[in-house]
Amino acid sequence: MILVNGKADSRINVSDRGLQYGDGLFETIAYRNGEIEFLEAHLNRLMLGCERLAIPFKQLKKLQVELSVLLDALADNDAVIKIVITRGSGGRGYLSDKTVEPTRIISIYPFPIYPEKSGEIGVTARFCQQRLSENLSLAGIKHLNRLEQVLARNEWVDNGIAEGIMLDQHNNVIEGTMSNLFIVKAGELLTAKLNKSGVAGVLRAEILQLSIDNNISYSETEISKESLANADEVFICNSIIGIWPVICILDAKINNTYPIGKITKQLQKLLAN
Amino acid sequence: MILVNGKADSRINVSDRGLQYGDGLFETIAYRNGEIEFLEAHLNRLMLGCERLAIPFKQLKKLQVELSVLLDALADNDAVIKIVITRGSGGRGYLSDKTVEPTRIISIYPFPIYPEKSGEIGVTARFCQQRLSENLSLAGIKHLNRLEQVLARNEWVDNGIAEGIMLDQHNNVIEGTMSNLFIVKAGELLTAKLNKSGVAGVLRAEILQLSIDNNISYSETEISKESLANADEVFICNSIIGIWPVICILDAKINNTYPIGKITKQLQKLLAN
Repeated sequence: MILVNGKADSRINVSDRGLQYGDGLFETIAYRNGEIEFLEAHLNRLMLGCERLAIPFKQLKKLQVELSVLLDALADNDAVIKIVITRGSGGRGYLSDKTVEPTRIISIYPFPIYPEKSGEIGVTARFCQQRLSENLSLAGIKHLNRLEQVLARNEWVDNGIAEGIMLDQHNNVIEGTMSNLFIVKAGELLTAKLNKSGVAGVLRAEILQLSIDNNISYSETEISKESLANADEVFICNSIIGIWPVICILDAKINNTYPIGKITKQLQKLLAN
Repeated sequence: MILVNGKADSRINVSDRGLQYGDGLFETIAYRNGEIEFLEAHLNRLMLGCERLAIPFKQLKKLQVELSVLLDALADNDAVIKIVITRGSGGRGYLSDKTVEPTRIISIYPFPIYPEKSGEIGVTARFCQQRLSENLSLAGIKHLNRLEQVLARNEWVDNGIAEGIMLDQHNNVIEGTMSNLFIVKAGELLTAKLNKSGVAGVLRAEILQLSIDNNISYSETEISKESLANADEVFICNSIIGIWPVICILDAKINNTYPIGKITKQLQKLLAN
């Protein structure tokens, strides 16, 4: 099920700047147990992204109405909702035409089938060769320029590896290809600062808020490969998978293994409530 | 006139990875005086880009046939040919489906109307705030992740400014938003190394080849803002505009002005033959 600018359709114009330049943003949202999870946070991030890219998106109310129409049709089937906003068609070359209305696309996908119990028994991750580049204008937002993630994710095909961990150019650990990463060290929760690269995930923000509400000490900081190797607990998160404990990170030198720790389990429980 | 996978069409699937992730490449080619300019060089760069991104594009012959069909229809009207190759539709998330055929799109646009005589009288440029990020995997190729260029080009609207000059994170001068940049200093032609960022333009390569053939000494090197300020000649180039001398670069501190120099004129003449 796909709506393009409010109409049932599965195609867009070749001239759309989303295709021509990756000139847009997206959100991937869980619809579970008859409810859209963290909808407000997703829409807030989307609007923040539009502001950062100066995309004049003024159809938020229309988008919300369209979402509810689609969900009525879904009934109680779990699904993934993907929203794409592009700067629309037009403009000569990179210069955009300010009078053009942005394109809004809502696609509904079946909820992905992940290995059962990943949240319970944990997953294995690996390091990606592909680095995340630094870009102050683009850091944090979920824009459509995702070749780094595509190249990183295509480095492995082994289904036993759930995620690839990406570093920046200074060997800082930033995030997974499709998730944010947290470590716990000496009772403190740590996650990468995302001011130069990475995507500031909605679930990442939710976890930081839960930490504040529940007196879990946390810090957004630089995380080295060594800090990651010596962590007490490691987990990854996104809106679809929730929190997955990482129990093993494959490395060229020595594979690091981790227990499923207390804080990881506490956050999983808090998130479930 | 647009062909999508060989068929007259103006739309593509929403699920195309070109839209979803900017997962693809493009070429912008001049059709002038009944001839496609530097076609072989463009197709070579396109195939190199496919190799770099591991896009299994095997329809080069079909693409060439489709190009000639479109051009027959054009007759003697000058035009810009844009070719887009994407990794196609499908794959779950960033992981691609290796069995999917890439999407090929050929669009024909009217030749753009640039201010007359820019090549003769020169143009004014400015510096962009937006930086080019460093990415070893993506440097040099003309991929669809172009948000940096979009943001840079939208920094100004003054038609009197023909191009914006982009720096990398280390304040090296790399290129224009839509062009490569050359300077001449003490009789030597200099252009930025593009091993970490930038697009290795077809006309840039042609100019380097002309320099070899005509004993013009050149170097691909790091160019600082200071070197640019102190250059004897400056010009920008791409496949559509050819060579435009830069006669003024607006700067916060002091505007730099340049004559239209001997080597710029020599290269323009060589290119015209």
